[in-house]
Amino acid sequence: MQLLKDRILKDGIVKPGNILKVDSFLNHQMDITLINEIGKEFKRRFADCPITKILTIEASGIGIACIAAQYFDVPVIFAKKAQSLNLDGEMYCSKVESFTHKKVYDVILSKKFLGPEDHVLLIDDFLANGCALLGLIDIVKESGATLEGAGIVIEKGFQNGGQKIRDMGVRLESLAIVDSMTDDSLTFRD
Amino acid sequence: MQLLKDRILKDGIVKPGNILKVDSFLNHQMDITLINEIGKEFKRRFADCPITKILTIEASGIGIACIAAQYFDVPVIFAKKAQSLNLDGEMYCSKVESFTHKKVYDVILSKKFLGPEDHVLLIDDFLANGCALLGLIDIVKESGATLEGAGIVIEKGFQNGGQKIRDMGVRLESLAIVDSMTDDSLTFRD
Repeated sequence: MQLLKDRILKDGIVKPGNILKVDSFLNHQMDITLINEIGKEFKRRFADCPITKILTIEASGIGIACIAAQYFDVPVIFAKKAQSLNLDGEMYCSKVESFTHKKVYDVILSKKFLGPEDHVLLIDDFLANGCALLGLIDIVKESGATLEGAGIVIEKGFQNGGQKIRDMGVRLESLAIVDSMTDDSLTFRD
Repeated sequence: MQLLKDRILKDGIVKPGNILKVDSFLNHQMDITLINEIGKEFKRRFADCPITKILTIEASGIGIACIAAQYFDVPVIFAKKAQSLNLDGEMYCSKVESFTHKKVYDVILSKKFLGPEDHVLLIDDFLANGCALLGLIDIVKESGATLEGAGIVIEKGFQNGGQKIRDMGVRLESLAIVDSMTDDSLTFRD
């Protein structure tokens, strides 16, 4: 998606430790005009899929999923990290390791909101090692729903998450895949 | 907002400890059609304000803020809970006590995204004791921005957050104010 790649080149900042900061438009401050275009692009790429629910994970996936859901005309469900006192009843649960925060946490989703009749599109802002997305895929499997695919805004192509998920046979659409980055250059996959 | 009140009566569940669960349409599964109407209503109520940014707090406020922001044509910024390795540089910070999770946490926002030139609308899903909203108000004060008001989806009128915030002179618009609730009845303020 050229508009997104241009924006990453313009406003993305590369930090030590292979960190790409896009917090001025994607995951701290959110440019809603850009995210609307991202939502339309996800709809274009998954137009042939009978999506009934969009599943994401808190926190930064939620806004993107909500904007995109307008084009699919379906509800958003978001998995929560760690146990919450407000969540009772039966839960789908998967363990996820966060490299950013250096810890393992539970990803949980109420069983009420996903079942075998559903066709699910996963949406998230970033894909690097794939742990969060694998947690969501686990939850979809546990629910018996059909996984139609995953839409990612930015994939770090030099980490192995994308490869792992494509090797599982999951239809993965990343709107920008960064194949390499240094302080003064950033290369996208064609 | 009648549509919202009707939905709370239809799908809200009262749990022991004064918990009102609206997770089937607002803060776990999200009914995007309803949230669009909520966004329009916030715009109607704050139409006279020169809003430049919508500020919310992760996680459940983000989706509502993003949908609403489309009607204001402004970016969303969301404050984060606790310190994150991905957030560097200078931060606004406020301490917030969570009654739901029984702990104190930091609410942080990058200084890059809010300054004296901004006119801010706060948006969140719930207002009970007001701690989260007071944290956001602190951050706006620290930034020197103008606080135009706060838009809340559901206010628990029997807790003191709304009163505290109105007493501070903040323009507070809650789309549904629950004045009392028991297992089998729920009363809204007129």
